[in-house]
Amino acid sequence: MQSHENSDSDTSQQTEYSLLQVNGAWNRQTGGQSQKEGRLSAAKIFQRTSEHGLSWTVVSPIVFTYRVIQCHNLLDVGNDTLLCGHIEDQEELKAFRSKTKPIKRFIVIDETVNQLYGSQVTRYFEARNVLYRILPLPTTEENKSMELVTRILEEVHKFGIDRRSEPLIAIGGGVCLDVVGLAASLYRRRTPYIRVPTTLLSYIDASVGAKTGVNFANGKNKLGSYIPPVATFLDRTFIRTVPRRQVSNGMAEMLKMALMKHRGLFELLETEGRYLLDSSFQSRDKFSGCCDLEDAASLSTRIAIETMLEELAPNLWEDDLDRLVDFGHLVSPELEMKVLPALLHGEAVNIDMSFMVYVAHQKGLLTGEEKARISRCMLGLELPVWHQDCTLALVQKSLSERLKHSAGSLRMPLPKGLGCAEIFHDISDEFLCQAFKSWCDELGSS
Amino acid sequence: MQSHENSDSDTSQQTEYSLLQVNGAWNRQTGGQSQKEGRLSAAKIFQRTSEHGLSWTVVSPIVFTYRVIQCHNLLDVGNDTLLCGHIEDQEELKAFRSKTKPIKRFIVIDETVNQLYGSQVTRYFEARNVLYRILPLPTTEENKSMELVTRILEEVHKFGIDRRSEPLIAIGGGVCLDVVGLAASLYRRRTPYIRVPTTLLSYIDASVGAKTGVNFANGKNKLGSYIPPVATFLDRTFIRTVPRRQVSNGMAEMLKMALMKHRGLFELLETEGRYLLDSSFQSRDKFSGCCDLEDAASLSTRIAIETMLEELAPNLWEDDLDRLVDFGHLVSPELEMKVLPALLHGEAVNIDMSFMVYVAHQKGLLTGEEKARISRCMLGLELPVWHQDCTLALVQKSLSERLKHSAGSLRMPLPKGLGCAEIFHDISDEFLCQAFKSWCDELGSS
Repeated sequence: MQSHENSDSDTSQQTEYSLLQVNGAWNRQTGGQSQKEGRLSAAKIFQRTSEHGLSWTVVSPIVFTYRVIQCHNLLDVGNDTLLCGHIEDQEELKAFRSKTKPIKRFIVIDETVNQLYGSQVTRYFEARNVLYRILPLPTTEENKSMELVTRILEEVHKFGIDRRSEPLIAIGGGVCLDVVGLAASLYRRRTPYIRVPTTLLSYIDASVGAKTGVNFANGKNKLGSYIPPVATFLDRTFIRTVPRRQVSNGMAEMLKMALMKHRGLFELLETEGRYLLDSSFQSRDKFSGCCDLEDAASLSTRIAIETMLEELAPNLWEDDLDRLVDFGHLVSPELEMKVLPALLHGEAVNIDMSFMVYVAHQKGLLTGEEKARISRCMLGLELPVWHQDCTLALVQKSLSERLKHSAGSLRMPLPKGLGCAEIFHDISDEFLCQAFKSWCDELGSS
Repeated sequence: MQSHENSDSDTSQQTEYSLLQVNGAWNRQTGGQSQKEGRLSAAKIFQRTSEHGLSWTVVSPIVFTYRVIQCHNLLDVGNDTLLCGHIEDQEELKAFRSKTKPIKRFIVIDETVNQLYGSQVTRYFEARNVLYRILPLPTTEENKSMELVTRILEEVHKFGIDRRSEPLIAIGGGVCLDVVGLAASLYRRRTPYIRVPTTLLSYIDASVGAKTGVNFANGKNKLGSYIPPVATFLDRTFIRTVPRRQVSNGMAEMLKMALMKHRGLFELLETEGRYLLDSSFQSRDKFSGCCDLEDAASLSTRIAIETMLEELAPNLWEDDLDRLVDFGHLVSPELEMKVLPALLHGEAVNIDMSFMVYVAHQKGLLTGEEKARISRCMLGLELPVWHQDCTLALVQKSLSERLKHSAGSLRMPLPKGLGCAEIFHDISDEFLCQAFKSWCDELGSS
């Protein structure tokens, strides 16, 4: 995954070839040549005779392009975003809109979401004259398995879609988006798909990156891929029907981005968090359309998306192990799995973050006042800040697991003031114990 | 998958952001700014307000790097290629060789290959003091399914490997390499894997590119991925134990590359093909090591690999639908599936190519003498040049299927003289019938 590098002693006998396409055939050429006209590839081939034998190294960049759109009224029959919002090229879009051939779409929708929005979804595709098939599925954490992927694929295969131009559509929470994403990335080695998140957590988190996955052998997301959707359509209207605890759950990931890199978002959550929770992220004036950027719901979601995209775009396949977005995710996976289903994902993440704030304070990265502000903010968002099952032993086990899978370094993101962070590579056990003790003393009764 | 392009009218309101990492956090910056020091990403984010809403387009290049090594004596205990031939970086290699911690490897081997080479493989890992697990599996076309992938993954998970540094190893023919490739690309969203082909067909074909896959719902390779191995180790010694018909089978894919883009390889197959078949691609002087480049076996396999790499490297994810390597693969998948298991893959491919040679001759792309030379060469390689089940109806059906899945264009590669080709986008039915008739008249009795 890294770009091609060699020590000097080794590159000396190496030949670097570019690739030029002339009359349909690709041909190798060494750097100096350029007399021929043709299409030059970004790929390279390096040839050399090593101690192992004659070797070629292929270096081939693949460009992933995907679109994230914050929109409104996605299911209004007059809105064609759901059908062609993924088409970026204007010529292609024009061609699509003037097409008389019927459009074909396969839609996977979460069962619960289907109860709430199924009739609207059906009405939409009926009114737009689409050849469609809607598959409602119980996309829960317990069902998040390869079997569910296979079930989707069987239906897709029966229905028949064009692998180039007829994206699958997933409507639901994180599990639904992850499972459909994996199905699409496997079908014919890659079929485009579209994500429509219906919970705040998936709106903020699962929708923005490239990850797909299912659980396997008792492991969370042990199988999956890094294939981004062609497009994600974010419509806050869906959050109206999300239970309060689930909204709070989503706000934990928002708070994560705030603590790691955006003081403004933190302050917004401090002052407007309760209101956002009360209003389920619906705009004060529901007729204000997409221009209500000053609205707290619009502003907070927009910043959450933008900060996420900033961190994910340069590291789409997670080659860089130093990731700020891992904050809150060092201890929480163990905790979440241990107490399942007692804690929601965001709740477990928040307990992890709450502890890490004490670590940061212990390290002198946060003042007492900053630490207290963060805890108050968490409580204001109705998120748990401590849990009896988050024991010191669990913390230690999680961190030693982390150490194993992170190339021998802890890579612990910690807040450094409000809206700023740093990644630390080790921490003494004694230090950890002290932070854990303060955390329990101060928040254990909460 | 294409790079980001827009019509002028649309880009006017668009903001292009680069991404700069400062103190661990990635930040967007517009083109003009460059006052800050930091790490610049190759990824970009484009933001604009479109008719659909506020939209971000993420453009993120991922660089795939893999190594193909032609080597000898891969299973000799003194040879460490199998353990560290995938490590390109010299520092890393030095660190690996001086490591005292035991190496861990999970190996999937085809059942038949295991009967022939199992004891050698075991001896190798024992002698090198590796913590290993060898899983022999019946990797046949009939078993090439998601169930086999899951079975491998369960064993891998039980065994436990480091997703960063402990590649899976696949030893076998094309099916084995494809199935293990898919398992590895799914495990923890991507685990490195190594391919060791043991048949001529997989040596020439499956080993060189990025494709993995399994059959699904009666469709050949309907599920899969485009994740290349970290390395492929090509050792012709294995071909010694491959049955003659299977060697001939592999030579069909070699002939394909010859006809499409390498006259020299064609002439080599004309003159030395029979000898290569008789000797199972073993070098005349088995002690000549890796420097026997003049040897027909070395030369022909090297050219086949090089021409393949040339075509695959610039189009690793098959975004370009115009592919010379598709020659022989327009009619053959239907034929192969129809008569299964009567024809081997390469045999079906050869029948397809044999017919296409008649189409090319009919089009005036090949002289009668060239056409005859190609047919003679095919027969010399003991490959079938005609089949009763390859009917005109089957040809027509295959081509209309192709048309459906190739964005409305036939994209038919045809030889144009010897070792040169062109891709054609349509062909009249009348023309096809004529070529088919000549083909049957001349080769139908063969």
